Amino acid sequence: MHVHRVVVIGGGFGGLQAVHKLRHELVDVTLVDRQNFHLFQPLTYQVATGALSPGEIAYPLRTIFKRAHNVRVLLAEVADFDLDHRELQLHPVASIPAPESIAYDTLIIAGGSHYSYFGHDEWSEAAPEVKSLESALGVRSRILSAFEAAEAEPDPERRAAWLTFAVVGGGPTGVEMAGQIAELARDTLPHEFRTIDSRMGRILLIEAVDRLLTSFPPSLSEKALESLQGLGVTPMLRSTVVDVDEHGVTVEPAGGPSERIPARTIIWAAGVEASNMAARLGELTGAEVDRAGRVSVEPDLTLPGHPEVFALGDMVRVRRPDGSVLTLPGVAPVAMQQGRYAAEVVRARLRGAPSRPFHYLDKGNLATIGRGSAVADIKRLELSGVIAWLTWLLVHLWYLVGFQNRILVFIRWSFSFATHGRGARLITDPAAEAAAREPAAR
Amino acid sequence: MHVHRVVVIGGGFGGLQAVHKLRHELVDVTLVDRQNFHLFQPLTYQVATGALSPGEIAYPLRTIFKRAHNVRVLLAEVADFDLDHRELQLHPVASIPAPESIAYDTLIIAGGSHYSYFGHDEWSEAAPEVKSLESALGVRSRILSAFEAAEAEPDPERRAAWLTFAVVGGGPTGVEMAGQIAELARDTLPHEFRTIDSRMGRILLIEAVDRLLTSFPPSLSEKALESLQGLGVTPMLRSTVVDVDEHGVTVEPAGGPSERIPARTIIWAAGVEASNMAARLGELTGAEVDRAGRVSVEPDLTLPGHPEVFALGDMVRVRRPDGSVLTLPGVAPVAMQQGRYAAEVVRARLRGAPSRPFHYLDKGNLATIGRGSAVADIKRLELSGVIAWLTWLLVHLWYLVGFQNRILVFIRWSFSFATHGRGARLITDPAAEAAAREPAAR
Repeated sequence: MHVHRVVVIGGGFGGLQAVHKLRHELVDVTLVDRQNFHLFQPLTYQVATGALSPGEIAYPLRTIFKRAHNVRVLLAEVADFDLDHRELQLHPVASIPAPESIAYDTLIIAGGSHYSYFGHDEWSEAAPEVKSLESALGVRSRILSAFEAAEAEPDPERRAAWLTFAVVGGGPTGVEMAGQIAELARDTLPHEFRTIDSRMGRILLIEAVDRLLTSFPPSLSEKALESLQGLGVTPMLRSTVVDVDEHGVTVEPAGGPSERIPARTIIWAAGVEASNMAARLGELTGAEVDRAGRVSVEPDLTLPGHPEVFALGDMVRVRRPDGSVLTLPGVAPVAMQQGRYAAEVVRARLRGAPSRPFHYLDKGNLATIGRGSAVADIKRLELSGVIAWLTWLLVHLWYLVGFQNRILVFIRWSFSFATHGRGARLITDPAAEAAAREPAAR
Repeated sequence: MHVHRVVVIGGGFGGLQAVHKLRHELVDVTLVDRQNFHLFQPLTYQVATGALSPGEIAYPLRTIFKRAHNVRVLLAEVADFDLDHRELQLHPVASIPAPESIAYDTLIIAGGSHYSYFGHDEWSEAAPEVKSLESALGVRSRILSAFEAAEAEPDPERRAAWLTFAVVGGGPTGVEMAGQIAELARDTLPHEFRTIDSRMGRILLIEAVDRLLTSFPPSLSEKALESLQGLGVTPMLRSTVVDVDEHGVTVEPAGGPSERIPARTIIWAAGVEASNMAARLGELTGAEVDRAGRVSVEPDLTLPGHPEVFALGDMVRVRRPDGSVLTLPGVAPVAMQQGRYAAEVVRARLRGAPSRPFHYLDKGNLATIGRGSAVADIKRLELSGVIAWLTWLLVHLWYLVGFQNRILVFIRWSFSFATHGRGARLITDPAAEAAAREPAAR
């Protein structure tokens, strides 16, 4: 008997839900990912400021599906699609062998997105993002090293540049990063240095449009702005970044002359660019691809002409039954609902049952700013302050994979709250780590 | 008024105790270290197998001495000593500026040691050690990648090489590493793979002499051997490593012909070599330096002719009042007692009081093998099994710096014990981390 083979690409929120929903079905599931763990991306920014350790927000994929005997995990990179022959072509990751291709009956693609440097990829070196675990750890070393360098730097101008932190992008990640750096500077570090006063640190949050958190109602943007200012963050609205290098950032305010700001730590949290798998799928199927690289999928999340191929999450836009195209927010709940939906369609088809178009149930929108401060927009209920923050806390603990991780993170947060401390403040040397790992990476 | 300036080199166990004992004195203390954290080295091997996260066994030095206002932390590398002018010459670490030199009235040197490749430093690439946090993370990626590679490798011979783990050195670290890999293969991973049976993993523990744990009584060595065999480890006693490369290790049993063992994961835990500061101090003062690079210090831990310079920990041997030289074990309690002793001598001198020679109070010796299994040699009381293991557990939790870390580690351990799981099993890419960190490292 031929068992229906489902291949799922990506162990993020969407892929994980799809696999989860298929784990009791009579199908063979292969989950393909470049990394051996699921990353709880909404909290990587906390790794970047030493509030959490990497192991606390990442969980091995094999452990998650340990008891799902119809699921296998394959560590590999996607090289290309052969949609006509229903084959996925693969590349090995580091030294780990991978088959050249695998065949599927159904393919579910959840490749995610990354930040976009608006055509200036060369900025990424001076202004890394905090979306992957590796880059978050690199940013952690940078932020902590900047305070160390300021402590040791006798020249006041250079010291000021070390104490200037520029966060680019006023979305949830940018707001959270700026808030976290402010808390680090004002609450965690003050008594730890002898020469500098870490509270003198200047934290800039640079946003091109006229308000922060544009996915929230304007009144909550205003609340977030005030909270950030209260924490000592300097929001720079209607300001476009026109140049970035390792010594600073050049900003152009709307209508004003451009200004050069010396800053040794720059963090990028602007723009979105879909996984390049999206563009490739557009090429292969003729589906529309937008400026952010997202491919348009049918109302049932499949690709035009390929009902056996689903694509979902923040690498797609969804065509409505009336033909218009819907861009859903690039947040975990969208990917999770879409992952579950795709799995349900597969199950329905195997039973010969019909299925309805995907419908997104918006449960609300949350963003945290700092200790006791967040904004929440839940079904027209607008919350801010402590209540929103507690909601944020509970929701994030709830969705964190792994019971043990929930407890560890809860304890870290309780300690941070009580002591203003941050336990995982290590400046590690990835080059030394790479050296120890190297032969295996060949 | 001139305040007595004490410079302490090294934020390990010895240096930390010295600074701690001086924190309420009328002295200025500068603690110099290359890294911004204290590492609880006895547990780094648990990071190498994913049982603990780095942040749980490392603690920022500045946080430790936050409230000690006479203590400053300086991130720098020691370049050289100018003993005549009482100056310490420094090199900057990465991008963090450092003064070229600092002056001292008293210098306390606690530079530690590293593993020795017996003149074959080229082996270090194929056989990394697990003493530093970075190398432990590299080893973690290697061990986990080896199982992944075995899962994906169709060729049975190559697969066997991926499933062979060779640990070189039968001291406490080697025994602990071999035991941990065995537990990983037998308890944690079995249900996570679909092609391989991780229990088929071969774990070799290669030791040149005829028993393991030579610092323990022979009966406990025997107990440790049996426990390891029970876990599935293959101890190879009286076997010398004569060659190492990334595809295997060549071993020469006493009296027998050499044997080539294909193994893709080799971990080095043999030999000890003192920090090269020890040899330099020998050169400068004429003090004896032994084959392991340790310098001999006077009965009060000072260098000959330089009563203002202390050296301690596993980079020194101590001259007895009768002229003989004592090699103390390279363990944390020795360094801690010596660090406290040096601080007490400084305090006594400032009061014009005499001080007695250093005396090591041996509280016992502990090594763990695996779940519920350890050996303890405490004042002629020889323990093994669960009681020794509980002792080991409590002692290590007790000495772990940071109340929060104690709780986090306790929880991780409780979970591992209950579920056989290991939460921090991430294959991370240090190259990507390095890229994100790079500009700051210039």
